[in-house]
Amino acid sequence: MSEKQPNAAFIIIGNEILSGRTQDKNLNYLATVLVKHGIKFSEVRVIPDIEEVIVNTVNELRAKFDSVFTSGGIGPTHDDITSGSIAKAFGIELELNDEAVKRMLKHYENPEDFNDSRKKMAMIPVGATLIDNPISAAPGFIYENVYVMAGVPSIFRAMIDSTVPTLKGGDPILAVSVSTHITEGNVADGLGKIQDEFDDVDIGSYPYMRNGRLGTSLVVRGTNQDSLESAKNKIVEMIVAAGGEAFEEQDL
Amino acid sequence: MSEKQPNAAFIIIGNEILSGRTQDKNLNYLATVLVKHGIKFSEVRVIPDIEEVIVNTVNELRAKFDSVFTSGGIGPTHDDITSGSIAKAFGIELELNDEAVKRMLKHYENPEDFNDSRKKMAMIPVGATLIDNPISAAPGFIYENVYVMAGVPSIFRAMIDSTVPTLKGGDPILAVSVSTHITEGNVADGLGKIQDEFDDVDIGSYPYMRNGRLGTSLVVRGTNQDSLESAKNKIVEMIVAAGGEAFEEQDL
Repeated sequence: MSEKQPNAAFIIIGNEILSGRTQDKNLNYLATVLVKHGIKFSEVRVIPDIEEVIVNTVNELRAKFDSVFTSGGIGPTHDDITSGSIAKAFGIELELNDEAVKRMLKHYENPEDFNDSRKKMAMIPVGATLIDNPISAAPGFIYENVYVMAGVPSIFRAMIDSTVPTLKGGDPILAVSVSTHITEGNVADGLGKIQDEFDDVDIGSYPYMRNGRLGTSLVVRGTNQDSLESAKNKIVEMIVAAGGEAFEEQDL
Repeated sequence: MSEKQPNAAFIIIGNEILSGRTQDKNLNYLATVLVKHGIKFSEVRVIPDIEEVIVNTVNELRAKFDSVFTSGGIGPTHDDITSGSIAKAFGIELELNDEAVKRMLKHYENPEDFNDSRKKMAMIPVGATLIDNPISAAPGFIYENVYVMAGVPSIFRAMIDSTVPTLKGGDPILAVSVSTHITEGNVADGLGKIQDEFDDVDIGSYPYMRNGRLGTSLVVRGTNQDSLESAKNKIVEMIVAAGGEAFEEQDL
């Protein structure tokens, strides 16, 4: 794989994921957007709403990766402690952000609805850049290489769509995939040899069961289209030589 | 919340999750099983199939948490490097495990199918205890406080179901939830006050949109049924006082 690719990590902040109450829907979306933009998605952490844990995790990952995304904990309630924790991680203060107040006042029909709890959502670290929230107004924000976003999937997606394209991307990571009814254990040896031949692609092997029938999906990833095609052709040859049939599919 | 509860972390090993190709289905299942068993689910990490990353992550988390579960990377192909990485993390060797060989030979109709690639799945750290795989025979294993399981959801679930009940559990974490069409920003203030009153429950607030209508789901969690009920009753009172309607739901 290319060494020049920028990388990114994602911190999912929320007791509701760890308690099993909510199933995360944001990881997969972020993954597909990053891949298309040529950014290597290096690590994800799911952590509870505990200030010390948020501060330590943000500080560790922002030093380690080019960009860090967070989701969750920027709402109006007592368990929404992300903004304050991010400020603490950077050693800065929160302030009532005028632009955030303006956007939220515009959003609420009745100015009284912009109560103290909702004002909390306009408390943004000093010097941060706002991320637009086209759905419910309360913004996310960017501070240095940390992108703080809402956990509600529709808002998270809108925020990702408006921020990732502004990041420095690398060569897009391309993928082709081939599936076969030959099971993993019978293609593993040949596959290892093909992987050894191509050092600029990553070959992944994923067993599946579809319509009650076992099979294996083989995915070749890389930034070089020619290598991808050559590796894929070798895989198809191997499957046919083993008496199997190869089904080609366009993958992510 | 009770301080006596054992805790656990989960490491999802797999490029396919980080590339967006596959959506993880194991986190949520593990979360619900741990909660029922009274084990606090403290952290999740998703990491790539890179030996150094696996070794470092396992060593960090096994020192920090009572139990560590892993999923993925114990299949027959070149990208399945979890077992070797776990052995390296503990400074021990892999060996061909006789019991694992026996189970796998019994599983394959044709002994020739137990080829060199599949034999790799019987390479288990010296001194590890096997975890039964009722679906495709190749076992997981336990070494000290690390539980190494397959990533395929049906196999992962079977392995979780047979291992978690053997762990020391705490008081089961109970939860009751109440939902209302009042939006989060209008219950936040009252909710914070109720949380302050009860230090042995955790109150979570989750905005939702259902059938085009906004609302908030409020979840009270804790190990003490009486506190749970009292806090829930206060929440219902608050909603009614604000002119709303409270819908009770039994939650996780």
